[in-house]
Amino acid sequence: MKIHMPVLLTNAGWIRTPASPDENGVPYEMRKLDADSILLENGLVRWIGREADAPLTKAERVDLNGMGVTPGLIDFHAHPVFAATREAEFELRTRGASYEEIAAAGGGILNSARRVREATEDHLFAHSLPFLDNALAAGTTTLEAKSGYGLEPDAEYKMLRVIRRLNDVHALDLFPTFLGAHEFPPEYRDDHEGYIATLIDEMIPYVAREGLAEACDIFCETGVYSIEESTRILLAAKEHGLKVKVHADQLSPLGGAKLAADLGALSADHIEFIDDEGIEKLASSGTVAGLLPVAAHFLRMKEDPPVREMIDRGVICALATDFNPGSSMCESMTMALHLAVMRFRVNAEEAFWMATAGSARALGLTDRGWIGEGALADLVVWSTDGIEQVPYHFGVNHASQVYKRGRLAAKEGRPLS
Amino acid sequence: MKIHMPVLLTNAGWIRTPASPDENGVPYEMRKLDADSILLENGLVRWIGREADAPLTKAERVDLNGMGVTPGLIDFHAHPVFAATREAEFELRTRGASYEEIAAAGGGILNSARRVREATEDHLFAHSLPFLDNALAAGTTTLEAKSGYGLEPDAEYKMLRVIRRLNDVHALDLFPTFLGAHEFPPEYRDDHEGYIATLIDEMIPYVAREGLAEACDIFCETGVYSIEESTRILLAAKEHGLKVKVHADQLSPLGGAKLAADLGALSADHIEFIDDEGIEKLASSGTVAGLLPVAAHFLRMKEDPPVREMIDRGVICALATDFNPGSSMCESMTMALHLAVMRFRVNAEEAFWMATAGSARALGLTDRGWIGEGALADLVVWSTDGIEQVPYHFGVNHASQVYKRGRLAAKEGRPLS
Repeated sequence: MKIHMPVLLTNAGWIRTPASPDENGVPYEMRKLDADSILLENGLVRWIGREADAPLTKAERVDLNGMGVTPGLIDFHAHPVFAATREAEFELRTRGASYEEIAAAGGGILNSARRVREATEDHLFAHSLPFLDNALAAGTTTLEAKSGYGLEPDAEYKMLRVIRRLNDVHALDLFPTFLGAHEFPPEYRDDHEGYIATLIDEMIPYVAREGLAEACDIFCETGVYSIEESTRILLAAKEHGLKVKVHADQLSPLGGAKLAADLGALSADHIEFIDDEGIEKLASSGTVAGLLPVAAHFLRMKEDPPVREMIDRGVICALATDFNPGSSMCESMTMALHLAVMRFRVNAEEAFWMATAGSARALGLTDRGWIGEGALADLVVWSTDGIEQVPYHFGVNHASQVYKRGRLAAKEGRPLS
Repeated sequence: MKIHMPVLLTNAGWIRTPASPDENGVPYEMRKLDADSILLENGLVRWIGREADAPLTKAERVDLNGMGVTPGLIDFHAHPVFAATREAEFELRTRGASYEEIAAAGGGILNSARRVREATEDHLFAHSLPFLDNALAAGTTTLEAKSGYGLEPDAEYKMLRVIRRLNDVHALDLFPTFLGAHEFPPEYRDDHEGYIATLIDEMIPYVAREGLAEACDIFCETGVYSIEESTRILLAAKEHGLKVKVHADQLSPLGGAKLAADLGALSADHIEFIDDEGIEKLASSGTVAGLLPVAAHFLRMKEDPPVREMIDRGVICALATDFNPGSSMCESMTMALHLAVMRFRVNAEEAFWMATAGSARALGLTDRGWIGEGALADLVVWSTDGIEQVPYHFGVNHASQVYKRGRLAAKEGRPLS
């Protein structure tokens, strides 16, 4: 393993961060640190303060010239591995085609599944890399990556092996999630129990045993996996030591958020149709409300989750892109920040908190999503005067430098190889 | 003047362009050229075809490796010169503040005007340059730049001199527009006739005489400039040889589009509330319908212009960012393409046509907005498989190379200095 010289970031114009998980800080508060310098050593933040007080460590000094710093953004819900884009469906939807019509025309998740099954690991790997580069360059330092376009054992394992390989070579940390229950595969259209048995008896045990995923996700929705089916599958995942999470209440008020809370899931995601009981359960359980405004925008959703109410009632909200070729073709967390402000009427501070502390919690990670001694040195250096300009001045990249585990990983919109 | 070697772009995967204005092509059609190479010489496209047939000119050969080419994007409506961003108003609006409440809190156009009046030319110049860089790097090669944050003779002239200076040093072509009638200045709140007299008797003649602007624009809206006032001001502008254009029917159906057509204006812009007669007038007059979806998005407008109806009735539509710090803080034309598809339900081909041929027409320019022998060599090289992916895969930059007047001006999201 190479030894890297510590880095001393100096002359920061501003540094803003959530409290660490240990501090029991105020949710949605981005503290302003009384500091202009951060020392990064061995992948961690070692010290924060005024440059004159810096430890006498030999370090590479980087002058930030007044630029600002936040923790790296954490995209806790994404589908970055697929074999082909689906712009034809985007155009069909523009002309008013429904989800059902797109599926009937060979589109939707099964379209991606057909292509992923045919694809080699090398193709999937090469196809996914540029998306990771784009995400990193826009400020993402940890990215969830789901399977779910295989829908059969070999193709699901193939996706998870590709995710492992991407994680090995790319600066980004990938958090692998098994999503075999993304849809029912065509072979099991009339035999849901047959596929559920394959999931529970074969795929979940294999994925857990091989260490191919940290968590198991499911699309709990009318016409896809029912509450009862979701419960059985997620309980099996928990028995095998996987964390669980749920695509919940996106298109109808089925009760997925309540289920997620009852099962102690990491998060209940989408939740456009969450009901009062669901909100109550999320608040009391600590299961995170996973907000996906980019997908809501891309799908031209009329409904939005009751974000202000959830915040007021003590629910922890997190922010992600839901990057995928069908319903959210954008891997930029800064776009998620913008669209969160636009759609949910949160402010920049709340949006940043959700995309750092909130999203770390949605992945069960305590070592990131904040800046402090001992945290991972995952940082974004912004060229703006404050966090307020990032969602406001949108469609351009303000992430001047991105540090991942203490090393410069992207600069001026380009990843360093 | 430096002599530059011709450039031969080769191995293009696809080349798509509107017809030239001389060809009377089908509106909204982006032709697929049977060619893989383009020769750029003396700032113009000299030849297009298959590489084997290229003229025997000594040229720098650039291998596009299958990437695609369109004309440079033309942003026909923008306010890139201002003294300070207005993120605080963005947050007020998020909390539900109305236009009137923001104005009462010291915000709005008069906020920018106060700051511009105080600013030096050097500050305005330096503040604006990064926006031009961002626009260029995202594929814009011609950008309109309006005054209108001065609202008094000296401050308006100052803005126009800054625009001239930016045009002199920057690769982008700027099209300067006088917008002294953007609002009524505070000194003339109770004396509209006094300011109108200043506009007609002093400012318009001076701007025209000094060659500080190509066109004169006006904010024709209830509570701002009435139809009658707009008519007098724009007729004065025409008398002094300026082209005219109108902010029309944005917030109410006042009849600005009809006025624009009657006066032979370049374009009627915004037009969320255009009525049937307005559409008919635009179709018959050739005045362009200026579509500004980024502003509509940023302002969370409920109304959109009747774009499909206008297309069907023969109106020429154009696409711009309306970049400004109050109501459209985004200088990226690729974001305008995305939001046009999202809001107006046009397809990628229609959106690209509007942003090239349509926008050229909205500025009265015939030498750009198309690719063909004799056109300006303003080109974007896209890293996508086709134009369809550009509005679909949004929030990241696909403009791999941008050529301005035959020279590489931006690459991989960064302008070349």
